[in-house]
Amino acid sequence: MTYAVAVKLERGIVFAADTRTNAGVDNIAQYKKLTCWRIPGERVLVMLSAGNLAVSQAVLSLLNEAPSDKEYPGTTLYSAQNMYRAARVVGEALREARSIDGPSLEVSKLSFSTSFIFGGQIGDEPPRLFHIYPEGNFIEATTDTPFFQIGEHKYGKPILDRVAQTSMKLGDAAKLVLLSFDSTLRSNLSVGLPIDMLTYETNTLKLEHTKRIGQDDPYFKMLSGEWSKALRAAFQNIEAFDI
Amino acid sequence: MTYAVAVKLERGIVFAADTRTNAGVDNIAQYKKLTCWRIPGERVLVMLSAGNLAVSQAVLSLLNEAPSDKEYPGTTLYSAQNMYRAARVVGEALREARSIDGPSLEVSKLSFSTSFIFGGQIGDEPPRLFHIYPEGNFIEATTDTPFFQIGEHKYGKPILDRVAQTSMKLGDAAKLVLLSFDSTLRSNLSVGLPIDMLTYETNTLKLEHTKRIGQDDPYFKMLSGEWSKALRAAFQNIEAFDI
Repeated sequence: MTYAVAVKLERGIVFAADTRTNAGVDNIAQYKKLTCWRIPGERVLVMLSAGNLAVSQAVLSLLNEAPSDKEYPGTTLYSAQNMYRAARVVGEALREARSIDGPSLEVSKLSFSTSFIFGGQIGDEPPRLFHIYPEGNFIEATTDTPFFQIGEHKYGKPILDRVAQTSMKLGDAAKLVLLSFDSTLRSNLSVGLPIDMLTYETNTLKLEHTKRIGQDDPYFKMLSGEWSKALRAAFQNIEAFDI
Repeated sequence: MTYAVAVKLERGIVFAADTRTNAGVDNIAQYKKLTCWRIPGERVLVMLSAGNLAVSQAVLSLLNEAPSDKEYPGTTLYSAQNMYRAARVVGEALREARSIDGPSLEVSKLSFSTSFIFGGQIGDEPPRLFHIYPEGNFIEATTDTPFFQIGEHKYGKPILDRVAQTSMKLGDAAKLVLLSFDSTLRSNLSVGLPIDMLTYETNTLKLEHTKRIGQDDPYFKMLSGEWSKALRAAFQNIEAFDI
């Protein structure tokens, strides 16, 4: 499994993904699930992936092909005029991968479940964030629900539901995302450290803040410990149910 | 869907289940999923059910048949010598229901997913708690993991993982169970109020504490509000991630 989440704020977008892949609990490996494309001063695009690793790697290969390698040249992530067009490029690559691999997966009764979170900024357009479905279509984050999760989303959702707001500072949103990971990591073995985190600041059109957070990361250790302590204290402070 | 949970403590067992059933989001209804059997001074047995309602009702009908109605009379919940034997009675009833309904469900590609949490106390034996699988076999709660959940378990699990301990007081465990419900109710529409809660106190061999907790329950409203406030405060009190 995978856990990946992104939160869109007024000040930017926070992206994070774990790095564990597995084909059964007896066969785990580490793969980066966060990919970015950029032309400094012009565009920054970030993608998080979940689902079948062969399919998401195929999609990345298609997205990274030079236009001259393609059978039918068209828009690329480096030439798309806006984020909507860029998301369509990703959706089309996913549909192409599905047309190649989908039938064989079906024969083995494996579902085609690869999906992406894709976001960033192109030129003067404000940053945008999309959830791209296995079918290649997508939805966009709004102020009502400013975050997307893919993969094992349930354990880490309650804290996002309660706290996420578009007015948050980037550092607070990064803290929130790591708390959401903390709950998920405790409950699902197929989600594993390290976490890749990328924080994009609106209108900078460059990537400055990327970090890999492993088991020994002092901030993550502090956060996990303090949060457990605070939850237990909060629990104690509420009066018991009168049975 | 359903959410049901029970926590086994030194001082007793807390049981709780929601009351929503659904056949699609456009077809919901309210059914009690908590059932008890008792002979005061001798035994108290409690069962929570999740999965196909027709199957769990069939199991209840089989369990409640008089011995004289049965084709092959045997042990009943009122005659089982201990909790292990009682859990086997439930498992057998589930297997019987599966042999009746299973093949037809299979034709419609519906999985046989009914499962139960079953616990209580018989005579001098300490209280015991079981999770009974769709196959009719079961596992027992231990001090390492003193709780069981069935149905939509993921949203409400992180708080149980962090706080549940066998040394808790019954009123604190009831508070914990309601917090676990609060997270679940916020995230899954197919889990709905009211909650049926039953608190059994070790060695009383009677049922004194049962409660139905609805939307207007003042304790649940207070708990939900205070918990949200405390979580937000705990979140604010931890330093932000330094991006």
